Amino acid sequence: MSDRKLKRALGIDFGGTMVKLGLVDERGGVRATASFPTGETRGPESWLDRVAQCLPRLGLPASPAALKPEIAGIGIGVPGFTDFERGFIYELTNVPGWAAVPLADLAERRFGVRTFVDNDVNAMALGECTFGCGRLYHHAVFVTLGTGVGGGLLIHNKIYRGAHSMAGEIGHMSIDFDGLRSPQGVGGLELYVGNRAIAQRAADALRAGRSSLLRETAANDPERVTPREIAAAAAAGDALSLEIFDFVAVCLATAFASIVYLLQPQAIIIGGGVAQAGDILFDPLRRHLRDRLSPVFADRVEVRPAELGNDAGLIGCAALALSIG
Amino acid sequence: MSDRKLKRALGIDFGGTMVKLGLVDERGGVRATASFPTGETRGPESWLDRVAQCLPRLGLPASPAALKPEIAGIGIGVPGFTDFERGFIYELTNVPGWAAVPLADLAERRFGVRTFVDNDVNAMALGECTFGCGRLYHHAVFVTLGTGVGGGLLIHNKIYRGAHSMAGEIGHMSIDFDGLRSPQGVGGLELYVGNRAIAQRAADALRAGRSSLLRETAANDPERVTPREIAAAAAAGDALSLEIFDFVAVCLATAFASIVYLLQPQAIIIGGGVAQAGDILFDPLRRHLRDRLSPVFADRVEVRPAELGNDAGLIGCAALALSIG
Repeated sequence: MSDRKLKRALGIDFGGTMVKLGLVDERGGVRATASFPTGETRGPESWLDRVAQCLPRLGLPASPAALKPEIAGIGIGVPGFTDFERGFIYELTNVPGWAAVPLADLAERRFGVRTFVDNDVNAMALGECTFGCGRLYHHAVFVTLGTGVGGGLLIHNKIYRGAHSMAGEIGHMSIDFDGLRSPQGVGGLELYVGNRAIAQRAADALRAGRSSLLRETAANDPERVTPREIAAAAAAGDALSLEIFDFVAVCLATAFASIVYLLQPQAIIIGGGVAQAGDILFDPLRRHLRDRLSPVFADRVEVRPAELGNDAGLIGCAALALSIG
Repeated sequence: MSDRKLKRALGIDFGGTMVKLGLVDERGGVRATASFPTGETRGPESWLDRVAQCLPRLGLPASPAALKPEIAGIGIGVPGFTDFERGFIYELTNVPGWAAVPLADLAERRFGVRTFVDNDVNAMALGECTFGCGRLYHHAVFVTLGTGVGGGLLIHNKIYRGAHSMAGEIGHMSIDFDGLRSPQGVGGLELYVGNRAIAQRAADALRAGRSSLLRETAANDPERVTPREIAAAAAAGDALSLEIFDFVAVCLATAFASIVYLLQPQAIIIGGGVAQAGDILFDPLRRHLRDRLSPVFADRVEVRPAELGNDAGLIGCAALALSIG
């Protein structure tokens, strides 16, 4: 197949800080990108204006009639609750002015092409399952580890969204019936392994006088240590940092064991910033997961890092429209 | 449709103590039953002999040629790990002589009709989702509470069995990353809410001198109190018994909240002996589940008792063969 004939779609990764646009082909290749700061828009109409302004920078025509033959569709991943079937945004957690927005309809009216809207983690999961290591599996669970902990479920080769498009909230699964409280419940995984929780654990230990390589990293402000720095210190053999990642691994393994017993996926695929710690995270994670599963389950599930890097979001959004989801 | 023309299937509920057989029609009506003690058979061949002996008692012909036009097939639910696709039994937890048995093949050869083999909880879940209250939902989770805690998942109107037919092991989901240990892991739900755990909680309190209506029930042996008796005492206002069911409800709500965040089913349907406690269990369970979910999830999930009673297993097994699964 000649490269010029590959089907293409516009992926829009709608983040809390930046909106990234990418023209992506059906092999997952990113052909062109553009972006604008989320804060420079005020609600859906001005957001669509900025998207329209980006089209020429992606080599795309701005008029609906000319755009339609050029792309298979538009896929938009957003940071919040959506109804995928209707392309409807219930609410975006950190972006004001986006409650109850029928974004797919608005975009279709503006651009004249089929548009799909999903939450960003489902889009990433779809990208990873279409073009990344998830393409090897029919049943897999995709997890992002960062400020929050998100999830996407691949069941029978399709993203499973539950009864109301909100499934996959792995970050709120409980790992302790008598644990930390949040508005989402008790003992939610994210409260133990989210970026802030990891950093806080280091800060608490430093303030308590614990010796550690992190003391230098932190200079005089224990609050400044990041998960990335803790991973680096762990890689250099720092005992405190290794302990912190071991605790993160125990917490993740607890939730993952529950997921494996419930769904028996072929693989758990992990992306996001904290996953970049590599073996520092994956070694204890695999060990603790095995320790928390009966061998008949442990032998049949893989734990592996996501393959798509920085463009995972963009590629996933485009995948929504490449009619593979 | 005349009653005589209803499609029928043979359901076989293979329990650790008894094997129950039932001729079930496509409306879920049980037409005839028979049974034999599991312990009177020694492995697959003698088990199939006993099944054959039961056929006349169900009004069915014993010869394959005559049997084939009479029933749509045979469905067998077993207490252990199976590969549903192949109709293969990996192992039965409490029945010796049943490791690596291709039971569907053996039964098809013996009886000349299509045979399906699944684990007993999946069969019950299918029965409840076909003929019980689960027929109202496309996405539901079925849970049995008894000696063990089992589960079955309805996803897009089908029982979901995971990558290797072992999904739905809700009893091993962890509710405490630092909790009770078992060969299956750490903090498994069943260790807190299985029959034995519930009875033990009462026994411990009685031995510690706690006053309770249960003291009379127990006579001089605290170990003799059953979950059924604790439910009765709770219904009579006994403080200890109410506390025990509140604790059971907290533990169940923790696991159910995780399930709802992960899968967002429309309903959680609960069967099995402990579920017969009725409001004594369901009232605190619904309250704690709401307390452990964000309202957007809590408002969209129902918690309700199973509708099929004692015949749930039989009906579910037959449903396997009525080609609705």
